[in-house]
Amino acid sequence: MIVVMQLNATKAEVDSLINRLEVSGFQSHIIKGTNRLVIGAVGFPAAPENPGLERMPGVEKVVPIMQPYKLAGREIKPDDTVINVKGIEIGGRSAVVIAGPCAVESREQLLEAAVAVKKAGASIIRGGAFKPRTSPYSFQGLEEEGLEILKEAGNLTGLPVITEVIDERSAKMACDYADILQVGARNMQNFQLLKLIGQTGKPVMLKRGISATINEWLMAAEYIMAQGNYKIILCERGIRTFETATRNTLDISAIPVVKGLSHLPIMVDPSHASGDWRLVSPLARAGLACGAHGVMVEVHPNPKQALCDGQQSLSIENFKQTMKDLSMFIQ
Amino acid sequence: MIVVMQLNATKAEVDSLINRLEVSGFQSHIIKGTNRLVIGAVGFPAAPENPGLERMPGVEKVVPIMQPYKLAGREIKPDDTVINVKGIEIGGRSAVVIAGPCAVESREQLLEAAVAVKKAGASIIRGGAFKPRTSPYSFQGLEEEGLEILKEAGNLTGLPVITEVIDERSAKMACDYADILQVGARNMQNFQLLKLIGQTGKPVMLKRGISATINEWLMAAEYIMAQGNYKIILCERGIRTFETATRNTLDISAIPVVKGLSHLPIMVDPSHASGDWRLVSPLARAGLACGAHGVMVEVHPNPKQALCDGQQSLSIENFKQTMKDLSMFIQ
Amino acid sequence: MIVVMQLNATKAEVDSLINRLEVSGFQSHIIKGTNRLVIGAVGFPAAPENPGLERMPGVEKVVPIMQPYKLAGREIKPDDTVINVKGIEIGGRSAVVIAGPCAVESREQLLEAAVAVKKAGASIIRGGAFKPRTSPYSFQGLEEEGLEILKEAGNLTGLPVITEVIDERSAKMACDYADILQVGARNMQNFQLLKLIGQTGKPVMLKRGISATINEWLMAAEYIMAQGNYKIILCERGIRTFETATRNTLDISAIPVVKGLSHLPIMVDPSHASGDWRLVSPLARAGLACGAHGVMVEVHPNPKQALCDGQQSLSIENFKQTMKDLSMFIQ
Amino acid sequence: MIVVMQLNATKAEVDSLINRLEVSGFQSHIIKGTNRLVIGAVGFPAAPENPGLERMPGVEKVVPIMQPYKLAGREIKPDDTVINVKGIEIGGRSAVVIAGPCAVESREQLLEAAVAVKKAGASIIRGGAFKPRTSPYSFQGLEEEGLEILKEAGNLTGLPVITEVIDERSAKMACDYADILQVGARNMQNFQLLKLIGQTGKPVMLKRGISATINEWLMAAEYIMAQGNYKIILCERGIRTFETATRNTLDISAIPVVKGLSHLPIMVDPSHASGDWRLVSPLARAGLACGAHGVMVEVHPNPKQALCDGQQSLSIENFKQTMKDLSMFIQ
Repeated sequence: MIVVMQLNATKAEVDSLINRLEVSGFQSHIIKGTNRLVIGAVGFPAAPENPGLERMPGVEKVVPIMQPYKLAGREIKPDDTVINVKGIEIGGRSAVVIAGPCAVESREQLLEAAVAVKKAGASIIRGGAFKPRTSPYSFQGLEEEGLEILKEAGNLTGLPVITEVIDERSAKMACDYADILQVGARNMQNFQLLKLIGQTGKPVMLKRGISATINEWLMAAEYIMAQGNYKIILCERGIRTFETATRNTLDISAIPVVKGLSHLPIMVDPSHASGDWRLVSPLARAGLACGAHGVMVEVHPNPKQALCDGQQSLSIENFKQTMKDLSMFIQ
Repeated sequence: MIVVMQLNATKAEVDSLINRLEVSGFQSHIIKGTNRLVIGAVGFPAAPENPGLERMPGVEKVVPIMQPYKLAGREIKPDDTVINVKGIEIGGRSAVVIAGPCAVESREQLLEAAVAVKKAGASIIRGGAFKPRTSPYSFQGLEEEGLEILKEAGNLTGLPVITEVIDERSAKMACDYADILQVGARNMQNFQLLKLIGQTGKPVMLKRGISATINEWLMAAEYIMAQGNYKIILCERGIRTFETATRNTLDISAIPVVKGLSHLPIMVDPSHASGDWRLVSPLARAGLACGAHGVMVEVHPNPKQALCDGQQSLSIENFKQTMKDLSMFIQ
Repeated sequence: MIVVMQLNATKAEVDSLINRLEVSGFQSHIIKGTNRLVIGAVGFPAAPENPGLERMPGVEKVVPIMQPYKLAGREIKPDDTVINVKGIEIGGRSAVVIAGPCAVESREQLLEAAVAVKKAGASIIRGGAFKPRTSPYSFQGLEEEGLEILKEAGNLTGLPVITEVIDERSAKMACDYADILQVGARNMQNFQLLKLIGQTGKPVMLKRGISATINEWLMAAEYIMAQGNYKIILCERGIRTFETATRNTLDISAIPVVKGLSHLPIMVDPSHASGDWRLVSPLARAGLACGAHGVMVEVHPNPKQALCDGQQSLSIENFKQTMKDLSMFIQ
Repeated sequence: MIVVMQLNATKAEVDSLINRLEVSGFQSHIIKGTNRLVIGAVGFPAAPENPGLERMPGVEKVVPIMQPYKLAGREIKPDDTVINVKGIEIGGRSAVVIAGPCAVESREQLLEAAVAVKKAGASIIRGGAFKPRTSPYSFQGLEEEGLEILKEAGNLTGLPVITEVIDERSAKMACDYADILQVGARNMQNFQLLKLIGQTGKPVMLKRGISATINEWLMAAEYIMAQGNYKIILCERGIRTFETATRNTLDISAIPVVKGLSHLPIMVDPSHASGDWRLVSPLARAGLACGAHGVMVEVHPNPKQALCDGQQSLSIENFKQTMKDLSMFIQ
């Protein structure tokens, strides 16, 4: 940690700061610049924060040096994490495709989608049973009935299934039915949910919050890992910016940045990022081209009738074409 | 709802769209422009959404006309909502000041703060017992012990108390101790929590999410109101932008905009918006000057020792001065 | 400047960096942390930049300590700058109101507006003769004819006049007619224009770019000041964010932040910030309440007929009311 | 254009609006909804704007239907524009690579870079002679001397050269030396410069402004095209968002979105988007994978000694590797 003193800091202020640092377990190194005094604080005391340093008289700013996450960072684990779910490797050499409808709407709909996406080459089936919707008047999901249908689709195709959980009840319930739990963007900083999921030990897909920095995202992963669950798949799904031509802005740079900072696998979700099925294939290609470990896309047997996000869902035909478009990136 | 057809839409595509609208309970009105066809869809069917219209062949875009919220809007209730909490009116003519520490750290700390802020003119005491923190290694709050201390402070001063709730357990617990429940920015779209709070019937302060549009914010209020709880206080606390000179950007325009759209009271939180105690007083003044029904500020007896957000907390002395600065806006 | 080395930086890499610093005129101070090495570079060589340090092997990041602006900063000039334009003081104790139409459309229109806003209490008349418009098919201004009318309005009312300049030609021309030159948001980083204006010596209003950080804004002021022209008035006019309820988001916090960093006067423009005349009065109040040295608002004798930005213009009646709303802030 | 009336609009207000529309050359079509009246305005009068409609009593909002750009849009020209510069086709089937240093620093530096990037497979040489820099104290370019060196590099390698222009003087000068003029992000809405370049008839690369919407970007192209110059290459170079892990956020979705809306070729600049040479190759791959017509990257013979943007420049070795990484996308 570096503490920059104000231009006119007095000797008493400097002494007082150094005293505070020493009480907190740091050693101080003073650098006298031509204009300012800078103090380097060395040591890594138990408490990761230093409340009040910015408030001390004479202090201009405090610059942290260490990354705030530990378990999620590459410094502690240089090798890539590879997560094996029923024989499917996520984070390894082969890119993984997760496909299926936004919401489980009926047995017929999901089974049709599941069989079709498997046939076209998907590795994992997705389907939502608990839907967090902006409007209280929108379809909120089939809940446990949806989970049962999802499990049946997993059994029928032999593929793992993933579903979103939104609170304690849905998380506990989903553990009995799904192979991977998904934390949606809106819940990325629902810390109670993260702790709970950390305790289940289930593989988790952690979507990036719509306005979360990469740092905050890795700190959210840290919440799960701090409970002993290291099987985390990150998923970039677009951030909120001023541009309205797409629903969100896919932060494609996050792929190589996260791969530099963390050992965890990372995927992209071009369906939620763009909100437009016509952009799904080019954005999926972009994601894999710059190193993502896989893509998650929405596929619906009949997008025009979808109860949720029909605008961004691929039809079965679209999905087949998308798989062809992606073939050069998938071994 | 207005449906704009593509430049080259065929008659069959137009007929198909009109058929879909009629099946959904809408009447269609066709407007032939010089270049394009536009279809006005009239009627308000039970289902508030029209899945798949954007996906129909020949459709360029769909423009909604109605606001998506009902209960939160001024159209349904033109008069301001005034919420009375133990004799303190929120949303009325007098601006309200909520003050207290970010977190309840100890009995001594909170009682000292409570007595001091009451003396200086605050109307409501704040203090967090459950703290959602970016890092799992940061102080997470005293939980039920903190609530007990908070209640004691309420009894001691005769002022109502407000505290943040973060999940089912904390919400149920807080109902026994606090007068107002607070939903933090990170939980603004934690819809399960909103529904639950809607069922408690307790007054709620709903903070705006860090990247929530005003529309989404009012939809979050709608979630609570749809459960029958209309006692909602909105609180603007800064949004995330590219500017890093302040922690967030206080969206001051949200005050008059929300007052135009909704009958619910609205306050500002300059402490979280700026992240810097030196900006609290000017931003509080700005908030009241443009019509906010009150301000919520962080006050700590010893900000340098605060376990949470010391950088943005006013000392008791600072708070007294701030109350003087605000006096011209408070009757 | 602080250089943070990577976790695994070698001794050779550290030596190489120190050598580079010394060649560049810096002294090095080494701080050995528990995990990392940090190097403090002291001295202020002629070249303000240190190209390539981040590229050196073993370097993780470089943290600057000094503010990049010199002349615009409070460190070099602690006292507020007050600019006197024909007897009107900007940056002093009294708040200043600049008012007038977006564009000069005709002699009648401008003179009517000028007389009316003076009568209602405005101190300076505004009117655009060169209009930078998003569409090439929109009204682009009356150019020199507009400047002549503006000057006539200044003579008629005895008030100073301000007008926007957009290139070398308009800047030179405006010097003959206007008392204050305005640099619009889109030209805040048109460095050629800034240099040119610096050479004119005329008072300048420098609007903040729509996505400029406060730092970049002060650096733009520095461009003008580096040419010897210190008479700069900053004007906050809204930044671009994800929120679409207003045209831009008025960054009200910029007022106290800039007042802390710089000695230059700062105003707010609630008309451009909001894009909605109904928000002009509350936002103007907010601006003055938190310390702005004045406001600039658009006033049009007949907003419905305005050739430019009618939606955000106050009518004469609106302006009179706005002046009443602001009276408590204007001595 | 669709005009949505307020809930309580009176008959007189509606009549007045319809009258205004008719005077402006529009035909009105009235749609009576269950709650509101909506008016469709048909016709495309000479004046592209309708000032004051939003200001009329009883009007809630006005929704435009037509795209504001004409010449840049695909509706007027469905086929892709292909621009041939000295035998290099931009916008055709083959992706184009533009490479070279940020700034021309010396004859040796540029010629070394030019020969090396040609050998590695680049099609066009870049180099800046006029540098718009955030600080007035930074290196501002060699100006005409730089242009001469650039032309020599073009002659030596037989490749076209591109350089940035920043005002009337530099634009006129560059026409004698360069094959493509570049308009930088900061000047995307410098409309005077756009008009001037439109008159030169030279091929232009128009970079997206750091906070420009796609719509505004195409309107900037429209400014150039309205002067008769249709040879425009768009270049996405990152937008400003809240994320600070990269200098800007590459808006990869802009590639397929622009290709849908416009016939103009579009490229990506991963160097400026990321500000970090380590991200250049993955982002270049992402750009080409989703359909960009080419990439522009910074290459410097000795990045550590670069006078400008060394952090984002590839070394010659890095560039060779990048060309290998991109080979699967370049025929």
